Amino acid sequence: MNKKLNELKKWLKETKTDCVLINDPENIAYYSGYKSDPHERISALVAFPFADPFLFTPSLEVNDAENSEWSFSVYGYLDNESPWSIISTKIQEIIVGTNRFAIEKAFLTVERYEMLLYFFENSQFINISEKIQEMKLIKNPDEINRMIEAGKWADKALEIGFNSIKEGISEEEIVAEIEYQLKKQGIKEMSFETMVLAGDHAASPHGIPGSRKVKKNDMVLFDLGVVCNGYTSDVTRTAIFGKPSIEAEKIYSVVLKAHQAAIAAVEPGVTAGQLDEIARDIITKEGYGDYFTHRLGHGLGSNVHEHPSIMKDSELIIKEGMCFSIEPGIYVPEVAGVRIEDCLYVTKNGCELFTKTSTAFQSII
Amino acid sequence: MNKKLNELKKWLKETKTDCVLINDPENIAYYSGYKSDPHERISALVAFPFADPFLFTPSLEVNDAENSEWSFSVYGYLDNESPWSIISTKIQEIIVGTNRFAIEKAFLTVERYEMLLYFFENSQFINISEKIQEMKLIKNPDEINRMIEAGKWADKALEIGFNSIKEGISEEEIVAEIEYQLKKQGIKEMSFETMVLAGDHAASPHGIPGSRKVKKNDMVLFDLGVVCNGYTSDVTRTAIFGKPSIEAEKIYSVVLKAHQAAIAAVEPGVTAGQLDEIARDIITKEGYGDYFTHRLGHGLGSNVHEHPSIMKDSELIIKEGMCFSIEPGIYVPEVAGVRIEDCLYVTKNGCELFTKTSTAFQSII
Repeated sequence: MNKKLNELKKWLKETKTDCVLINDPENIAYYSGYKSDPHERISALVAFPFADPFLFTPSLEVNDAENSEWSFSVYGYLDNESPWSIISTKIQEIIVGTNRFAIEKAFLTVERYEMLLYFFENSQFINISEKIQEMKLIKNPDEINRMIEAGKWADKALEIGFNSIKEGISEEEIVAEIEYQLKKQGIKEMSFETMVLAGDHAASPHGIPGSRKVKKNDMVLFDLGVVCNGYTSDVTRTAIFGKPSIEAEKIYSVVLKAHQAAIAAVEPGVTAGQLDEIARDIITKEGYGDYFTHRLGHGLGSNVHEHPSIMKDSELIIKEGMCFSIEPGIYVPEVAGVRIEDCLYVTKNGCELFTKTSTAFQSII
Repeated sequence: MNKKLNELKKWLKETKTDCVLINDPENIAYYSGYKSDPHERISALVAFPFADPFLFTPSLEVNDAENSEWSFSVYGYLDNESPWSIISTKIQEIIVGTNRFAIEKAFLTVERYEMLLYFFENSQFINISEKIQEMKLIKNPDEINRMIEAGKWADKALEIGFNSIKEGISEEEIVAEIEYQLKKQGIKEMSFETMVLAGDHAASPHGIPGSRKVKKNDMVLFDLGVVCNGYTSDVTRTAIFGKPSIEAEKIYSVVLKAHQAAIAAVEPGVTAGQLDEIARDIITKEGYGDYFTHRLGHGLGSNVHEHPSIMKDSELIIKEGMCFSIEPGIYVPEVAGVRIEDCLYVTKNGCELFTKTSTAFQSII
């Protein structure tokens, strides 16, 4: 049994929990090595303190699950069967009672919860979500190596994107170019929808690439990531095409200063809130505080957004092995949007970045 | 106010419900016209029987939401604020009491539900998920037109894929080619991860395209869809490259027969279960019943998987305006996997397919 499953089992013993049902597909993959997207169907990993765990999947995935690295039982259900009735029968075959039943309250829907309440009416339901977050928070060397690889591909993606910038090319054409080149080289999945936003369009931090064409003197915001061996990367650069306005250049320099100061401050012992404050103070002092509308960063790993959250007032203490983004941004509607993001892992004395693409304010033509 | 929001309001009045909170991003888009992916953050549409609704989004999306077709208030929350405390304050500013509070039990997580239970401790929480399913079940002409457009793009995607098949090309290279050509033509989003599976790899109904190369005499399964104006398409063809084995050809002909028979039977009044039975009987009689491991089809619309479910024993009565897939498949490990899928809309006397690509067993070289 792998280390992660063992730690889960240990937690079940320590907390005297009889059974846990994990249903987030990412978390199922984290513990079982079997990844799938069951869409609206249900998949679950069910584990016990003193018995072997099992996987439960739609029937059409049973073969794939059995052929994955998962070495325990796999049970399936057909579309016209009740998954909850089968799950409850399987659990009752393995253990006698379920006084304490752990579930992922951060992922389980109320509808599914009510099915469990029905089949396990005498159980007390406790939340394992925080424990899973905590387990995933510190990455082991194997996980960090996968993220280094994912970071290299993100740098490559930026390079492809920068090379494709020319007057008249549209945002969505640049996206197509990046993903095409990567997929041809064997990349199967991006961490999220690749974002390329040109000119004032970049002033929307969650904008969607469209037919807007790159014009001379635009800044072009790239936010993208690549999934490698189940682990993600995430990087943002704001590329300079020609000579942007003086205010755009000013905004860029403030964001870069905030980015560098926060990264320089990362080390074990600092709090997440302090990191956010360092970046936010710089931006606020320059008069752009109201235009930095999100937290400084987010954790990442097998999921592109996970703990820790690098945000104001957070007292979470940064530790060696944590992985997260530093991504200050300033978005002034109709003027400019700039964000600079790198993800990093915390070392004994500081941190290392997963992505290496230059952040200098330097036109790419 | 748009028709859909009006219908929601009417339902709130009829059921004497004081307030509804919709939090599935697809359903928020359905009622508000504003679509976004808030990742782990929360977005919500909150509506009332006798007052104007409001949208609630992360702060970084407020501008985008205000600039969308949504014409009512938008409230935001910062990453370090409690969204639930803000939502509850806003609701209490608008209405006096919330005796009956409707939520989407099919989407709301237990963690979020517990926050609502905390802030609205005297409320009774009822489920609106079934009502939303029912409202989305019958598509209006505008929705059907968008799906016809999405279907045309799916046909185009298949054409690109078929044209790219040659000996030695890998599954993932074909995927890259399809998505590149579409994105260059302005397509922003596929309905799901494009699936191209060659040879016996296609025997996994939810397989992931990889580096497997197309060989002479392979069958190559394409399952893909395109999103157009917020509406999806979904189509599967199993392309013939050369001359497959006699058993593979036999399997293909059985699937095609099941596919044609089920489509011919679609008309208002038939049940979903009867449609599944017609296809399943044909496959079972030919000895492949155990290898047809999923339901016959699923509804689709703004979401690629929605109601109705076309499955065994379902007594749901098919009505004009419903849209769903017919996709029988036979998956014999190490032999062949064949699925043929078209989506359709139900007319007064029968149905029309959204996709027109030929289903004939005919080699593409």
